Amino acid sequence: MLSESLIKEFKTIVGDENVFDNEADRQCYSYDSAVLDAVVPALVVRPTETAQIGLVVKLCNENGLPITVRGAGTNLSGGTIPDPRDGVVILTNGLTKILEINEQDLYAVVQPGVVTAKFAAEVAKRGLFYPPDPGSQAVSTIAGNVAENAGGLRGLKYGVTKDYVMGIEFFDVNGGLVKTGSRTVKCVTGYNLAGLMAASEGTLGVFSEIILKLVPPPRASKAMMAIFDDINKASEAVAGIIAAHVVPCTLEFMDQASIRYVEDYTKAGLPVNAEAILLIEVDGHPGQVEDDAARVEQVLKSTGAEIKVAKDAEEKFKLWEARRNALPALARAKPTTVLEDATVPRSQIPAMVKAINDIAAKYQINIGTFGHAGDGNLHPTILCDRRDKKEFERVEHAVDEIFDVALSLKGTLSGEHGIGMAKSKWMEKETSKATIDFSLNMKRAIDPKNILNPGKIIGG
Amino acid sequence: MLSESLIKEFKTIVGDENVFDNEADRQCYSYDSAVLDAVVPALVVRPTETAQIGLVVKLCNENGLPITVRGAGTNLSGGTIPDPRDGVVILTNGLTKILEINEQDLYAVVQPGVVTAKFAAEVAKRGLFYPPDPGSQAVSTIAGNVAENAGGLRGLKYGVTKDYVMGIEFFDVNGGLVKTGSRTVKCVTGYNLAGLMAASEGTLGVFSEIILKLVPPPRASKAMMAIFDDINKASEAVAGIIAAHVVPCTLEFMDQASIRYVEDYTKAGLPVNAEAILLIEVDGHPGQVEDDAARVEQVLKSTGAEIKVAKDAEEKFKLWEARRNALPALARAKPTTVLEDATVPRSQIPAMVKAINDIAAKYQINIGTFGHAGDGNLHPTILCDRRDKKEFERVEHAVDEIFDVALSLKGTLSGEHGIGMAKSKWMEKETSKATIDFSLNMKRAIDPKNILNPGKIIGG
Repeated sequence: MLSESLIKEFKTIVGDENVFDNEADRQCYSYDSAVLDAVVPALVVRPTETAQIGLVVKLCNENGLPITVRGAGTNLSGGTIPDPRDGVVILTNGLTKILEINEQDLYAVVQPGVVTAKFAAEVAKRGLFYPPDPGSQAVSTIAGNVAENAGGLRGLKYGVTKDYVMGIEFFDVNGGLVKTGSRTVKCVTGYNLAGLMAASEGTLGVFSEIILKLVPPPRASKAMMAIFDDINKASEAVAGIIAAHVVPCTLEFMDQASIRYVEDYTKAGLPVNAEAILLIEVDGHPGQVEDDAARVEQVLKSTGAEIKVAKDAEEKFKLWEARRNALPALARAKPTTVLEDATVPRSQIPAMVKAINDIAAKYQINIGTFGHAGDGNLHPTILCDRRDKKEFERVEHAVDEIFDVALSLKGTLSGEHGIGMAKSKWMEKETSKATIDFSLNMKRAIDPKNILNPGKIIGG
Repeated sequence: MLSESLIKEFKTIVGDENVFDNEADRQCYSYDSAVLDAVVPALVVRPTETAQIGLVVKLCNENGLPITVRGAGTNLSGGTIPDPRDGVVILTNGLTKILEINEQDLYAVVQPGVVTAKFAAEVAKRGLFYPPDPGSQAVSTIAGNVAENAGGLRGLKYGVTKDYVMGIEFFDVNGGLVKTGSRTVKCVTGYNLAGLMAASEGTLGVFSEIILKLVPPPRASKAMMAIFDDINKASEAVAGIIAAHVVPCTLEFMDQASIRYVEDYTKAGLPVNAEAILLIEVDGHPGQVEDDAARVEQVLKSTGAEIKVAKDAEEKFKLWEARRNALPALARAKPTTVLEDATVPRSQIPAMVKAINDIAAKYQINIGTFGHAGDGNLHPTILCDRRDKKEFERVEHAVDEIFDVALSLKGTLSGEHGIGMAKSKWMEKETSKATIDFSLNMKRAIDPKNILNPGKIIGG
């Protein structure tokens, strides 16, 4: 419980109307999209000018109040769950200005709370392209994407959020404004703090302004579905596409369970007897698109796949809708959806998928797997009921084993969802004690009272 | 002076033949390519196995000996100048193994001392492409490139060194092995320490292994020279090319002074009466290359430029040789060459070039300017004689003013050379006191005795 006088200080900074201290309001910000217990914050504060962020952070630091910054709360690893010790949530939805879209110099400057899809649409209106497309983009925010280094479907060709961060201004824990990066493509002035802040999950500072790189849009694209009666052939096809030096903008995978759940949900006419499908899109110059599509089709044919090329924009839309519906379709099946993002080098996908299916059988649980085959970022999705304690224990064992397999295949715990509160305990297994110590050391120096989103990434 | 017994401890780790303590040997490692005073190290140590790095670092830390890691010593900001207080230089030229080139998963794993051009050539033999191409690539090393986040001619389209770093293993100051990043395209497991280590100039840890991203090579390319009688038209052309949504792989600029020095040096038949030239190369799919080249020619014609398209590989080579010779040609003119890399958003190039010429006139010094027009990374190159104290004072004032102009145009102090010892004093002007404090805080926590390349980036 915060004192009235302290609450008044927050109100002085952001205005009475932007401080929420009644329980109903606070409860709205007690959870995110991870399967974790909710924690009701002590206070919710909504700055509407960037300078207010620094003052709020300073006040929190002076009073030892833990801060959790929240965009849309779509993250899947508990990164936006407040701290139980009088946690203060800072909302970014009062800071939604696109400050600049520079068509000559191919960058944009935005406030933290700009919604990703809205930003991408504004950029598109100017004839430019912002490629990162996390599944949550319709509601998630740029600052949230940067803090989590969000991925998406275009990772293989276009990279992830951090690859588009040219610069960040953020407030340190004392309320000082740190400026890192630049409006230029090249900048090596000082430490690459912008690189460090990306994926730091709100534990090192609070963003106030982000400079993003833009690119010219592809002039053409072509999408197709490949249907396989054998999952290994799907994987051979992925390897064959890369070996043919085609880099699709999207190269997605769905296993039989995912296909069936989606078909049940959408009645889109998906091949429910297929063992796997790949959804592939190539983009770029029209000549390149034709060539790349032909190379892809040749590879697919050599693996015996059935191919359905999208003939027009509508067919292409339907095809991607099937993939976009994978998560909601799976999520309908059971009360609890545990969506993982263990990632392996793409050549290890068949080994990973086989292991996931073996683990599902061993623990008698339902797992549907879909994801980004191009970059090895799979989403084994466990369908269960958290209230069934015995089942959920088996789920937890299964998740443990999935991570073990990913690491044994030279992969990683998390491709795009972040560590948050959900995966800290596995961190040392992938890295080393020295890595954890190095990270903790750095964190403690930057945030001595441990008030910046405590308990995330490295615990503590 | 180090004690005999301490020197013996180093010998025990790396072998007698890899410890150099006589003055002649030590003097070889007392300077780099920056215009700064040489500092002779107390000892030079050459690990030949990565585990030895950790032991050497630990021994240095225990004895408070400052470490400077040295690849080829080509850096231009003093990053490889040893510390005057019993500095130990760690050479990486005993660690030159390419450990893995993975064609399926498009990555490579290398030891720190691999020479960049040699690595790129090995990758090319496998039909793949490692794009970063700093001017020093024939001799500079991957670890040096990563530590400085080296740029090069392909920055606009392909990015810089950090954009190809997927993971790094490095020894912390205690000799613990820190593992960051992954062999996967997507990885958000823990802090993005790989991003932080890139551009950290050896001040946070010592690299032992680097995972690099590879891409398929472009299938075709086309190069041309555009000759301008007015520098503003050259800049209009750059803007026009970007506005036409062409992203050339290289888009280089040379002013009249550079052209004349190069012509004097190479007798290549360059247009010595031109006010500026642009050297442009587009690459990619053959159809795209044709289209892009046509768009570029159209833009160039509309600005009244004279265009010379390279008809074959030999002509293309000659064209790039002119650009590659810019620095050596300028460097011949006077005993001292001060090569700067102030960088501005590309639309600000005409303002920047005009300011550079005004500054040259004001201080009565010679400045030739060439550089990467596509990414706004210019190289104003001051030709002088450091022994002429009065002239060198004017040079220093001129450099000050060049930085001031770059910052006023929303640019940055350093696009690709790093801060090193040469530019620390300007850091706060570009960033903020909070930025310096944040950086120092972090550095002190990671390296409490300040032995990792002290005095670089933020001084101290």
